Amino acid sequence: MIKRALISVSNKEGIVELAKKLVDLNIEILSTGGTAKLLREAKVEVKDVSDITGFPECLDGRVKTLHPSVHGGILAIRSNNEHMQTLENLNIRSIDLVIINLYPFKETILKEGVQLEEAIENIDIGGPTMLRAAAKNYNDVTVVIDPMDYDVIIEEIKNKGNTSTETRYNLALKVFEHTAHYDSLIANYLRKKSDIFPEYLTLTYEKVQDLRYGENPHQMAAFYKEVGNNKATLVDGIQIQGKELSFNNINDANGALELLKEFEEPTVVAVKHTNPCGVASGKDIDEAWEKAYSADPLSIFGGIIAANRPITKKIADSMKEIFLEVVIAPDFTEEALKVFEEKKNLRLIKIENICSHSKEQWQIKKVQGGILVQEENNTLIKELKVVTNTAPNEEEHQDLVFAFKIVKHVKSNAIVLVKNKQTLAIGPGQTSRIWALQNAIGNSAHSLEGSVLASDAFFPFRDCVDEAAKAGVSAIIQPGGSIKDNTSIEACNEHGISMVFTGMRHFKH
Amino acid sequence: MIKRALISVSNKEGIVELAKKLVDLNIEILSTGGTAKLLREAKVEVKDVSDITGFPECLDGRVKTLHPSVHGGILAIRSNNEHMQTLENLNIRSIDLVIINLYPFKETILKEGVQLEEAIENIDIGGPTMLRAAAKNYNDVTVVIDPMDYDVIIEEIKNKGNTSTETRYNLALKVFEHTAHYDSLIANYLRKKSDIFPEYLTLTYEKVQDLRYGENPHQMAAFYKEVGNNKATLVDGIQIQGKELSFNNINDANGALELLKEFEEPTVVAVKHTNPCGVASGKDIDEAWEKAYSADPLSIFGGIIAANRPITKKIADSMKEIFLEVVIAPDFTEEALKVFEEKKNLRLIKIENICSHSKEQWQIKKVQGGILVQEENNTLIKELKVVTNTAPNEEEHQDLVFAFKIVKHVKSNAIVLVKNKQTLAIGPGQTSRIWALQNAIGNSAHSLEGSVLASDAFFPFRDCVDEAAKAGVSAIIQPGGSIKDNTSIEACNEHGISMVFTGMRHFKH
Repeated sequence: MIKRALISVSNKEGIVELAKKLVDLNIEILSTGGTAKLLREAKVEVKDVSDITGFPECLDGRVKTLHPSVHGGILAIRSNNEHMQTLENLNIRSIDLVIINLYPFKETILKEGVQLEEAIENIDIGGPTMLRAAAKNYNDVTVVIDPMDYDVIIEEIKNKGNTSTETRYNLALKVFEHTAHYDSLIANYLRKKSDIFPEYLTLTYEKVQDLRYGENPHQMAAFYKEVGNNKATLVDGIQIQGKELSFNNINDANGALELLKEFEEPTVVAVKHTNPCGVASGKDIDEAWEKAYSADPLSIFGGIIAANRPITKKIADSMKEIFLEVVIAPDFTEEALKVFEEKKNLRLIKIENICSHSKEQWQIKKVQGGILVQEENNTLIKELKVVTNTAPNEEEHQDLVFAFKIVKHVKSNAIVLVKNKQTLAIGPGQTSRIWALQNAIGNSAHSLEGSVLASDAFFPFRDCVDEAAKAGVSAIIQPGGSIKDNTSIEACNEHGISMVFTGMRHFKH
Repeated sequence: MIKRALISVSNKEGIVELAKKLVDLNIEILSTGGTAKLLREAKVEVKDVSDITGFPECLDGRVKTLHPSVHGGILAIRSNNEHMQTLENLNIRSIDLVIINLYPFKETILKEGVQLEEAIENIDIGGPTMLRAAAKNYNDVTVVIDPMDYDVIIEEIKNKGNTSTETRYNLALKVFEHTAHYDSLIANYLRKKSDIFPEYLTLTYEKVQDLRYGENPHQMAAFYKEVGNNKATLVDGIQIQGKELSFNNINDANGALELLKEFEEPTVVAVKHTNPCGVASGKDIDEAWEKAYSADPLSIFGGIIAANRPITKKIADSMKEIFLEVVIAPDFTEEALKVFEEKKNLRLIKIENICSHSKEQWQIKKVQGGILVQEENNTLIKELKVVTNTAPNEEEHQDLVFAFKIVKHVKSNAIVLVKNKQTLAIGPGQTSRIWALQNAIGNSAHSLEGSVLASDAFFPFRDCVDEAAKAGVSAIIQPGGSIKDNTSIEACNEHGISMVFTGMRHFKH
């Protein structure tokens, strides 16, 4: 039987209605500060917590409920005679229902220009304590942190005088999920000043949506977002039309976005199975699309497109002719949107400021039993050094850097061939480097004469240079650093190919 | 100036020595229950918290420190005259140093056969409250949760009468990292009964080690483990010899282990850049190694090997001749270890019960601004259905299932060709399925006559079947489910190839 409730909420949504219903059910209400005031104004009879503790609220509200009269009333095990005798001896009455939500720490840190002092003041101490105490004693106490649960508990109390054990268990779980989230946000906020990897790493997320399924139809899945740090990511995107994004859509779209952010001039990226299949820059976005599409008109089928300028009618007309999964852009012209109306299933995502890059604190790779955590790979070249007799000309130089930006985002071992800021061949994900190159060349629909080549890691042998020469490659960019660099350099000089080292490897798996 | 400390620890390591040093520095000590008893036995003068609260410890220790006299003493802002006046009026003395660690919730849930009641009783309420209060007020209060920090604070107090603001800030951060970890473990423990994706997902890890660098040398990285759920994973492994595991070693080794767990008979898996390059089963592990090695003797260079039987001298002698990064096995014979002594850098990892599989709750993929969460992919085949005029014979059937187990662990789009439980060709990570097949065939050093083929997803066209027929493939396994399945089936019938559908796709990216 629930006889007494303690209510102290920061989020006042629905609290007056709830309190009235509780009073109607003959439940006595204890409250504090602003909540008590609000309820009294609404003519709900409440008792102050300070009346039962005999202690005033003090230190600007820092100490209100941290008292044995409150916590004994929550934590006593009702079936334990000794506990109940203690309450009686100490003149403590039990509290059966705890309705609390916390100081808005998250909302505070998300405000622009917030200072450390204000953030710290919004760390709730009393609230989590009552929540955790009530959750620990869920066998006897109902704890509610979420206004969404008000109706359920009222209904149960109305029908049976109490909530069910299952409901109380689930509410207790919700409390610990919430306090873990809350303290994790505090730790992450405070940690920004430090850059070491902590002994305990707790990562916290909020659900964006359940997904229809995961990487495969037999796997359940959901999409979660970080708190803050979401600018110009998919989380920040607005879906304008089309089916719901799938697990693989999100994964691929993320790969497309990450690659797109390498470029400032008008650029289009096409991705399939997390690897780019066509990338091009142009004088305007129409040209960039035309080049990215013709880079590999076969693989783009069922692909994901990301563009860093608004999508025009011309592009929409061209896209209409092929099957695409998702198109991401900073905007779509009205004429383009009209064209896309005929393709109702095609997902269109608008991400403003798509070029901006909010630095992520960490990248994560799940392995069984744990995770690998690393800094984001957000640099490209350490130092560009010509290592051959001939140096690349200006056009080649630009294509080399363009190609190296792309190869960084292709699964290793990776080779990319480029001409005139358009990919001509991409060789992803091979266990041997020469295969990546042979596959790229073999699968290309273009003449590779005069193209440039980028490799994500150094050449262990001269074979890649020889193969590149056969295809007509004129310049090569790669990290360098092999003990056999000299053999590759010699091979380049023999073939009249220029080669530059970047001093920076870009494995991606 | 630190004048008063509150000590209440579950982990008593070093606490007596610390308390004695504090007393020598003229710091008064408050304590509770077991800690007070221990200190008194060691002749350290302590005051009971109940003496200052006027409230007895009660409810079997559930309520000890939850009192304004304690929390006012911790939370008052020393530079705030009103706060200090309030303390005086209420006869509360300030507490400047809080040394606390928590009930061993983690240790409790890791015990075998622990019951819910015992776990719940080990949820600490008072401890986190004092820790969080002290951490919130880190400007004025020093809070210590980790015995490793005892020496540092004693040193600082000795030298300056107080700790530095920087130290107190870092200790406060450590507290919230700890409480986030603690409540996250509680939530995960309670959640096991439910299988929905919660609104707030908080994942918590403990550091295994800092790594030299991440996926690339310019990225900082660390390896973290989950609490529990580590059986037969790398976290559970013992390194017998060799250099420290790198980020890429761990990632590759994990891939090798996951694939290895598909097999029960003696099997060896070789992995390069997260893709298998050679996999074979044999009548014994020597034969399995011989076959896995000869599957692709080129790509195995610099690879990761995982075997599900102890490594013999014969295998060690053969491995000695090539460059490998890591060898993982349930054990190594003494003779094998002697052989490996000559390869001091080679990492040898022993994982007992290597075949057993501890189900992971979730797989995680990081995307910018959030994560994708999905169930583990721990099934293989829904239903095996022969869809062609001819059915595979027994040997082909076994090879088909063998190949499908492998293709599940190859990056998509993926094709695997197998004969006699040995991979003959592996085509990983292509943006087009036919390329995956052509690459596999083109890069194979073997005759593919009479081999079987596995595809991780359905064939969109008949081209893959035609290409397979040219190579001499006799049987195919694939999920099926394309609207054009019939064209592939017809093609098989034309070529006299048998084909089975599994009803289950296995994308992996």
